[in-house]
Amino acid sequence: MIAIQDTYPVDVAYCYGCGRLNEHGHQIKTYLVGEETIAEFTPEPFHVAVPGFMYGGLIASLIDCHSAGSAAIYRMVADGKEIGSENAPRFVTAHLEVDYLKPTPLGPVRLVSRKVELKGRKVVVDTDFISDDTRTATGSAVLVEMPASMASDPFSPR
Amino acid sequence: MIAIQDTYPVDVAYCYGCGRLNEHGHQIKTYLVGEETIAEFTPEPFHVAVPGFMYGGLIASLIDCHSAGSAAIYRMVADGKEIGSENAPRFVTAHLEVDYLKPTPLGPVRLVSRKVELKGRKVVVDTDFISDDTRTATGSAVLVEMPASMASDPFSPR
Repeated sequence: MIAIQDTYPVDVAYCYGCGRLNEHGHQIKTYLVGEETIAEFTPEPFHVAVPGFMYGGLIASLIDCHSAGSAAIYRMVADGKEIGSENAPRFVTAHLEVDYLKPTPLGPVRLVSRKVELKGRKVVVDTDFISDDTRTATGSAVLVEMPASMASDPFSPR
Repeated sequence: MIAIQDTYPVDVAYCYGCGRLNEHGHQIKTYLVGEETIAEFTPEPFHVAVPGFMYGGLIASLIDCHSAGSAAIYRMVADGKEIGSENAPRFVTAHLEVDYLKPTPLGPVRLVSRKVELKGRKVVVDTDFISDDTRTATGSAVLVEMPASMASDPFSPR
């Protein structure tokens, strides 16, 4: 399986959450499995909210990056393209929501997401955030595709 | 001025985002100024989404922690207590929303928040996320006070 983040163009592969070229970052990897997308992550000992439990900001960060990767996957699938066959499109987050259902123990977690909507340049992705077999948080993100013209000069003034 | 995070009880002062005792974390500080709460933060060079622009997960993280600190402040103010006069109550996030209005340049930012609702153990806080004089994101968070009985054993099974 090929992680979508490993197919981002070089100039947009430095994201702190998911960029393969950010040596200080989380470097999360998002895979298509059936119709869902999956990512796994193991936090550092200091990624705590209170001792023993995962920091909520990290939970939001992982949902954010995994949703952006998922949006790229769902866009390619909708276009009939195989993951890894070309550079992935790069999505940015317009809106992020997280519900913290219960404390997440500090340990390996899994994110499982699905496409809720795909319309034009916009994709909506919902996520279950899972610790062991318990869903401890849920996320919903609205992602918008970065124009191709921004790939070499992302986010220049419009 | 006293930052609310400097008055959290020791056992809940290890948060990666705002714990004064987390040497690896962001250690943000939230102050009451008039009826608003303020925090300032300068990111590291590697806290990028794409080169030159701040990582969205960090934006969500800062809003999350600053909102929790703000909730503690508003709770104390409502109870007629002066910040620093005793240990602050500790709030945890139940729901977090972030709207990314425009890219945030990688540089110092300021968070300015206000109380939207305070009812029982629940506080709702809205935040403007500001880069230079431009609002680049907004946040809304629902915080719930951690029971005092959990202070020495936070998040134990209920």
